[in-house]
Amino acid sequence: MPKIVRFYETGGPEVLKIEELPLVEPGAGEVRLKVEAIGINRAEVMFRQGQYLENPVLPSRLGYEAAGVVDALGPGTTGITIGDRVSTIPSFSIGTYGVYGESAVVPAYAVVRYPGNLTPVEGTAIWMQYLTAFGALIEFGHVQKGVTVLITAASSSVGLAAIQITKSVGATAIAITRGADKKPFLLAAGADHVIVSDEQDLAESVMAITAGKGADVAFDPVAGALLGELAGAAAPGATIFEYGALSPATTTYPLFAALAKGLTVRGYTLFEIVKNPERLARGKQFICNGLESGALKPVIDRTFPLESIVAAHSYMESNRQKGKIVVVV
Amino acid sequence: MPKIVRFYETGGPEVLKIEELPLVEPGAGEVRLKVEAIGINRAEVMFRQGQYLENPVLPSRLGYEAAGVVDALGPGTTGITIGDRVSTIPSFSIGTYGVYGESAVVPAYAVVRYPGNLTPVEGTAIWMQYLTAFGALIEFGHVQKGVTVLITAASSSVGLAAIQITKSVGATAIAITRGADKKPFLLAAGADHVIVSDEQDLAESVMAITAGKGADVAFDPVAGALLGELAGAAAPGATIFEYGALSPATTTYPLFAALAKGLTVRGYTLFEIVKNPERLARGKQFICNGLESGALKPVIDRTFPLESIVAAHSYMESNRQKGKIVVVV
Repeated sequence: MPKIVRFYETGGPEVLKIEELPLVEPGAGEVRLKVEAIGINRAEVMFRQGQYLENPVLPSRLGYEAAGVVDALGPGTTGITIGDRVSTIPSFSIGTYGVYGESAVVPAYAVVRYPGNLTPVEGTAIWMQYLTAFGALIEFGHVQKGVTVLITAASSSVGLAAIQITKSVGATAIAITRGADKKPFLLAAGADHVIVSDEQDLAESVMAITAGKGADVAFDPVAGALLGELAGAAAPGATIFEYGALSPATTTYPLFAALAKGLTVRGYTLFEIVKNPERLARGKQFICNGLESGALKPVIDRTFPLESIVAAHSYMESNRQKGKIVVVV
Repeated sequence: MPKIVRFYETGGPEVLKIEELPLVEPGAGEVRLKVEAIGINRAEVMFRQGQYLENPVLPSRLGYEAAGVVDALGPGTTGITIGDRVSTIPSFSIGTYGVYGESAVVPAYAVVRYPGNLTPVEGTAIWMQYLTAFGALIEFGHVQKGVTVLITAASSSVGLAAIQITKSVGATAIAITRGADKKPFLLAAGADHVIVSDEQDLAESVMAITAGKGADVAFDPVAGALLGELAGAAAPGATIFEYGALSPATTTYPLFAALAKGLTVRGYTLFEIVKNPERLARGKQFICNGLESGALKPVIDRTFPLESIVAAHSYMESNRQKGKIVVVV
């Protein structure tokens, strides 16, 4: 019987339990994967804590991203063959279809054959990070050559994906990180500029880099006090995407900067892409092209074996990682 | 010598003084108007108080909107003839070119021949209100048939213009007003629905009207606590335009509603239209078409003679008006 990760109560990493459960047959419109690698996301940490958009029905599976080999097809699936090497797009219930384990049943619409030049570890580090960044920057933000993009939480997997996507279309990426220790890494990861927010004034630094114009787009999962700073660093007509709520502080709307500069503050989540077939198709095409050309390349911070799933979650919560955390099955 | 309104110190309405000053000749690119009517705007109240985007150089003129007859042309003006009946678009320094008086010199680019079916009192009640609403609703908000628009401060001249523009494109206008006393007026002014915010829950009322969908666009000069209420009343993917700061309270950004619904909060001012020749041309065309067809018709609350300019400002500050306050010269 395959090993599957479940939790019986919400809480810290230690609530995750590895159990042997009967192999599940895929239902109509579903496929089953023999899982090779699992991408770890903050969404799963929040779900495990009972603080996510979706609440767990206990005991609950969890997990959005897996790469593996298709080993069973449910009725009514087309375009997928047993033996296909695929990875999953987070577009389903994280609890019902949780992919943490040796075997996972997922909706057929959620699997994509990933480019053959990627390993399974890289294959499971595609969709959450690149689609999240694609949706804001390309689909809604229309980032292109000549545009300056501010990227906060830049060392996260989504932040690094945003740097790569920004660079891939010829735009300028300014990465923002709290401490100086990650600056060399972010420059090596492709950022044109890195601002260390614990040491530098954000607006002043961005104005210096942009010759007083400010940034055209900001991409931020933090909110709280950072939104006001981003508004100060923004160019007239800029768009600030807020895609998370990492700050525990109340977020004040920067009204006077917004009026004076005509700023747009746009709440955004990946669901706007994955729930819309046309946007999703454009995103898949953009990302597959970038992966095949090498313009996009997943940055893997560290891998853990499945037995160390608790340690993998603890490490995610340490915020020390630079890139994707992957569990190898 | 023409009578001109100036102020020597910032403060209440009583600082406005009527003086006889020498007739001014228009310079290069300028024209002079024999003023027939002056539109009173909140911008002038704020400028007089020293709380506007532009600070007065004392003693200062003031005023953005006048209708009159062209009686002198400066060098290099084209397309304008002495005797033309024009009104002014607020697109210049409110202090340098202040139009409060019997004569006003303004940039030639700022004058437009208004439709012949309008009186001077109506002619001076066009550009601030209709261009402000046009820019948000039509140029940026793409309001069209099937769209539901929430309009706050609905009895103001801009609010009434927004109701008319919304209706002129076949969309649904929901007017929001604090007290029940203005409800019959707003229904007569064309609003499809009126919500009295002192008595009704905003989100509940909008959801009831829209069968649970919410409003697609909101157009709000208040901000403060109202932004969170508008977010609660908004549909997925909605845009909330903030075009003023009438509330003295801090404005909290509705982060969780913005994430869950993919909301856009857009700071907006008329300057984004009047400083952009293409947008301004589209706005002028849209508004002239509407005025000529009768789809748009300025609502005049009350007129004052020039000698009563202090009373006109006091009345503006009373917030009792329903529509435009105009001074007849």
